[in-house]
Amino acid sequence: MDPIKLLLLLLLLLPLPLPILSSPISHHPHPCKTLTIFFHDILFNGHNSHNATAAIVGAPAWANRTILAKPTHFGDVVVFDDPITLNNDLHSPAIGRAQGLYLYDGKTVFTAWLAFSLVFNSTQHRGTIQIAGADPLLEKTRDVSVVGGTGDFFMARGVATLSTDAFEGDVYFRLRVDVRLYECYP
Amino acid sequence: MDPIKLLLLLLLLLPLPLPILSSPISHHPHPCKTLTIFFHDILFNGHNSHNATAAIVGAPAWANRTILAKPTHFGDVVVFDDPITLNNDLHSPAIGRAQGLYLYDGKTVFTAWLAFSLVFNSTQHRGTIQIAGADPLLEKTRDVSVVGGTGDFFMARGVATLSTDAFEGDVYFRLRVDVRLYECYP
Amino acid sequence: MDPIKLLLLLLLLLPLPLPILSSPISHHPHPCKTLTIFFHDILFNGHNSHNATAAIVGAPAWANRTILAKPTHFGDVVVFDDPITLNNDLHSPAIGRAQGLYLYDGKTVFTAWLAFSLVFNSTQHRGTIQIAGADPLLEKTRDVSVVGGTGDFFMARGVATLSTDAFEGDVYFRLRVDVRLYECYP
Repeated sequence: MDPIKLLLLLLLLLPLPLPILSSPISHHPHPCKTLTIFFHDILFNGHNSHNATAAIVGAPAWANRTILAKPTHFGDVVVFDDPITLNNDLHSPAIGRAQGLYLYDGKTVFTAWLAFSLVFNSTQHRGTIQIAGADPLLEKTRDVSVVGGTGDFFMARGVATLSTDAFEGDVYFRLRVDVRLYECYP
Repeated sequence: MDPIKLLLLLLLLLPLPLPILSSPISHHPHPCKTLTIFFHDILFNGHNSHNATAAIVGAPAWANRTILAKPTHFGDVVVFDDPITLNNDLHSPAIGRAQGLYLYDGKTVFTAWLAFSLVFNSTQHRGTIQIAGADPLLEKTRDVSVVGGTGDFFMARGVATLSTDAFEGDVYFRLRVDVRLYECYP
Repeated sequence: MDPIKLLLLLLLLLPLPLPILSSPISHHPHPCKTLTIFFHDILFNGHNSHNATAAIVGAPAWANRTILAKPTHFGDVVVFDDPITLNNDLHSPAIGRAQGLYLYDGKTVFTAWLAFSLVFNSTQHRGTIQIAGADPLLEKTRDVSVVGGTGDFFMARGVATLSTDAFEGDVYFRLRVDVRLYECYP
């Protein structure tokens, strides 16, 4: 066999092991997928059960489950099922739900920790994204981790940047979530 | 040196950088490891402390920690330590425990969110698998994320499909978990 | 074109797709980054609100939120915001905070489950590491999963080995955390 033919033959064989070695397509610092969504949290306060989307379900011994504990809500645990929208209007069509929990964990500063799923159920997206991380509320932007995904977001990993888009007292806040995935499966 | 020898020499050298670039062995859509287990949840209801494996530990202001809140258990948080078995018989030998929490987060529909570990402790498997995701209970199958693992499941990632294999009122349910790992370390 | 030139040309082109296919630099069993920290948990017991860093926020119906439930604290959920130090001295400078939750989930044995973030905020490290897993407290070392990271720990994955470095009754414990990352982004 002449060397060129052998070379081409071997090079044809070469790509084969590659997909086995590394399916995730990773680009850093360029994400393989980005997504911006808003979610809207209306906390139960004893008078709004008709439209509340979240409720305090745990609190320290000194607090209660109707009013967030003063001064920084330390120890309050909230379960939520918040509508996700593509823009900052609470009344625009929901494309899914943000479901999970957040808790306040600062004794003297406002800071939170959260673990939840973005559950998409629209013509555009179907699937879930799992998120966890610390949320120091007073900072303009906070990075948390995308630790997994299913459906359209199968095996996703990345970073989500949270920013408080609006809040009204202790009852309503709107969170902007900029999702950047750095590991995407085809 | 003749071209063929050079070619073979270079091809011999080529594979060297590959294991450094990508240790995880990924196959999509073919998982690198699969595993089917069942876990059994017996919820404390005030009268079954001898065999309960789970208890309500958080609830909204309008609910209590002995009876799941009507109508969809919204806000109830449950801690569990459930036996894992290889088949659907509660009394077959446990090969480990499912440990963590689930919470109900639908105000008008039955839906849950969970975060837990499968802790294996048998001759077959030793190690843990970390799972998180949304669990819309009324769907026949629900996909959640495998976000990490230790021991035999070192660095595992994948998807687990949940299905309710049986339930008896609010006290007992049996969950079938089909784990498919798409990233396995050797 | 002579075969050698063609060979060299093709080999020059070959490395190009590799960085696209796999950005994470993985070395197993050699971690790409290691880190040892300690964190210090002072649990609120009704009398130490001035220096407590953690509080019981959830408990089963038979327990309360001031005293850990006997005998194995089953169902107690604790929210914490604990200082992180580089050595085992509680009074050495904090380089960050460990923030999140742990819960006790053994009815007859001492075992816990935790999900939290290490939040670094020092000249050495800035960023977060997300951790989740089972924590069978009576074992000398326990492996949990590093499921994500941000900032200096962008996209981190790995394993953290926990060991109880000290404890004083139900009020204080010090955890040693040996973090080993096996996926690091440049």
